[in-house]
Amino acid sequence: MAKVSPARGMRDHVPAALRRRRFVFSLVEDVFQLFGFEPLETPAVERLEVLQGKYGAETEKLGFKILKRGAGSETGQCDMGLRYDLTVPLARFIASHPELAMPFRRYQIAPVWRAERPQRGRFREFYQCDIDTVGSASLVADAECVVVADLALKALGFEDYDVVVNHRQLLRAIAAAAGVADREHELLIAIDKLDKIGRQGVSEELDRRGFGAEAVALLWSVLEPASEEETAEEAMERLERSLPAPGPAAIADLRQLLVHVDALGGDLERVRFDPVLARGADYYTGPVFEIQLHGGGMGSLGGGGRYDGLIGHLGGRDLPAVGVSLGIERILVLMEEREMFPALAGVAEVFVAAISEDALNHALNVAGLFRSAGVSTVVSASTLRPKKVFKQAERMGTDLVVMIGTDEVAAGEVSVKRLSDGKQWRLPVADAVQVLLQD
Amino acid sequence: MAKVSPARGMRDHVPAALRRRRFVFSLVEDVFQLFGFEPLETPAVERLEVLQGKYGAETEKLGFKILKRGAGSETGQCDMGLRYDLTVPLARFIASHPELAMPFRRYQIAPVWRAERPQRGRFREFYQCDIDTVGSASLVADAECVVVADLALKALGFEDYDVVVNHRQLLRAIAAAAGVADREHELLIAIDKLDKIGRQGVSEELDRRGFGAEAVALLWSVLEPASEEETAEEAMERLERSLPAPGPAAIADLRQLLVHVDALGGDLERVRFDPVLARGADYYTGPVFEIQLHGGGMGSLGGGGRYDGLIGHLGGRDLPAVGVSLGIERILVLMEEREMFPALAGVAEVFVAAISEDALNHALNVAGLFRSAGVSTVVSASTLRPKKVFKQAERMGTDLVVMIGTDEVAAGEVSVKRLSDGKQWRLPVADAVQVLLQD
Repeated sequence: MAKVSPARGMRDHVPAALRRRRFVFSLVEDVFQLFGFEPLETPAVERLEVLQGKYGAETEKLGFKILKRGAGSETGQCDMGLRYDLTVPLARFIASHPELAMPFRRYQIAPVWRAERPQRGRFREFYQCDIDTVGSASLVADAECVVVADLALKALGFEDYDVVVNHRQLLRAIAAAAGVADREHELLIAIDKLDKIGRQGVSEELDRRGFGAEAVALLWSVLEPASEEETAEEAMERLERSLPAPGPAAIADLRQLLVHVDALGGDLERVRFDPVLARGADYYTGPVFEIQLHGGGMGSLGGGGRYDGLIGHLGGRDLPAVGVSLGIERILVLMEEREMFPALAGVAEVFVAAISEDALNHALNVAGLFRSAGVSTVVSASTLRPKKVFKQAERMGTDLVVMIGTDEVAAGEVSVKRLSDGKQWRLPVADAVQVLLQD
Repeated sequence: MAKVSPARGMRDHVPAALRRRRFVFSLVEDVFQLFGFEPLETPAVERLEVLQGKYGAETEKLGFKILKRGAGSETGQCDMGLRYDLTVPLARFIASHPELAMPFRRYQIAPVWRAERPQRGRFREFYQCDIDTVGSASLVADAECVVVADLALKALGFEDYDVVVNHRQLLRAIAAAAGVADREHELLIAIDKLDKIGRQGVSEELDRRGFGAEAVALLWSVLEPASEEETAEEAMERLERSLPAPGPAAIADLRQLLVHVDALGGDLERVRFDPVLARGADYYTGPVFEIQLHGGGMGSLGGGGRYDGLIGHLGGRDLPAVGVSLGIERILVLMEEREMFPALAGVAEVFVAAISEDALNHALNVAGLFRSAGVSTVVSASTLRPKKVFKQAERMGTDLVVMIGTDEVAAGEVSVKRLSDGKQWRLPVADAVQVLLQD
């Protein structure tokens, strides 16, 4: 085997790195479960007809396709593919399970695969981390998404972020007001680039697309604050007054959403209304939200929104739905860069080693005593010199080292060293577990 | 979307079923961690050159291949595949990471994919559950595999099984004794079928393959007990006396293995020597073990052995290794059939619902109080009639129901019902969390 690296863009997660990944997954999962979301697992592989025609050609080019077995294999026919998100499989799942009682609230933290050009921090196998409530049109479900996203970020130790909210129907109202009601989609695409190309760039793009100067001017007059001091509430009032339907209803939704967030104990200080929040995807129909770090430039750490038409479109069962997705891989990178991880110990709490040949089975015995007490213990499979014992324990992130040699066997004792403070004991075997655990 | 089922042979794991899967995974993982094995995650996808030429043509036909992106896609070229076990990826991982300190002890509980003909209890995406120690030739590592497998089965509640052990070098010695030293592989294949086709069938197969009657007779005289009363120790002594090298050394290994199992606190009553245990795979070089249910006929619930040549052969880095794999999907099926699962509660401990429109935000508030106390709580996103409240709570497996209507809001109280015993309370909101949690 000449090349031994993982496949292009794929990663091995070694134990030490996995500790940090699992730490993050577990904190996030705790928040999901605190809100009573239940886990769901769908297969990594879906039929191509399920995956295709859902995301647009650009995204679908990134899908990994699986060759047919048997007859089709020579002709290059494919019948399945690796999922490239968790939403289409969710819609397929809902359609496959007509017996499901609604509302159905699930989370899924699982890998997806996309053949993107690998680059720093971007991989072809990466985790997504979603909650969705299917079958409820209530804005309470939207508010839960906002609160869960906020609490998850807080649990991980982030402080410098907002949960920005907007309503997709505001865009529709703006398009109507600007006399381009049928071109809402183009408007969305242009505004979505505001972060990258600025107001001037967006205006130019709209101009190129043939939007009149009047429409563009109206757009900015609506989207931009009336003054630098304008509060979110003032902006909502202004939009409510100035926009045609469905603008006022959208503003009413957002007000309701904020009331629910507050009632749920959510942190309104973190929630910020911003009428230019676009959240690219075409399928959103109501409130949209995005976790934005202060200072910008980092992109978002997650986001979501209401997508009442999508489940029906994807799976044939027409149900309202809302969800939020945390950008868990980006969160991991950022936590690494910012050194936000606590010291995470290795699996083993104790390392036991024989330091003379005749003590090997005694060492196994002592390891068994610790394990019987529920203490995760590694025992060296062969005799080691003390220096090597310390080195191995250090490598494993294990603080307590227990050594047994000829002397210890004769005396019915063990030698112990705690690496963190260098403290050493010699104890009767019978007392070792109890003494070391209470210390 | 016409067909909405998962891809052929693939499954969705709904929350209720997932509870049981995670219960099993978690108990098994606890045992792995108790012995200080660390988690490793490798990608689902490997390069085809890593996967191919390792298992034999039969198995490799079952691999799912992934179409090349870009230019290769029209010609049906494939460059990657889904892993079909966790051992080849482990070998590739070891080769990819020359910096790894040895011994390297890892566990991995993860899905693999094989295009087998789907049938009851057999799926194309299924989990494997492995521990392996790479880089140690000590029989302590083998003994740990035996003890871990035993403890995992015990933790899950199994009682009617043995951990059967044998040594691959005994087969080599037998082949030598029978004058067919170069045909050990054929012998292995034939003996591996003993369970299915019986002694007569194996003899006929050996005859067909051209083994002489003398060799076959010698084989049985060695493999079968001298008498019905022969103990394992007596059988070992007999083989030690009667077999040429490497027979006696293999018996010495097995004796050492049993001493280590005992020293580790393992249950020697469960461990049974059986010289006919073949464990199909060609790559084993030392002790082999298999978990067999009493009464037979169920196949094994797991097994493994020492495979000192495989890592080098697969990955280019020559290291001794030993591992054991639990047949976790078969274990799940069996636990289901035998009703071995305890009652596993749903995620949510409390279900809160407004029973009148004006109480909705109050209900959200109460849910927030429970969550602040760390209690997993579902709140209904819309107002429900009490009958529907009970039904939803039951469906979720949630025992405590909290209801809030106009009356309760006015009184600053909540109505509570515990479904398991029908007990009802009415409590001030401020006391609800404390009273219900301590009850």
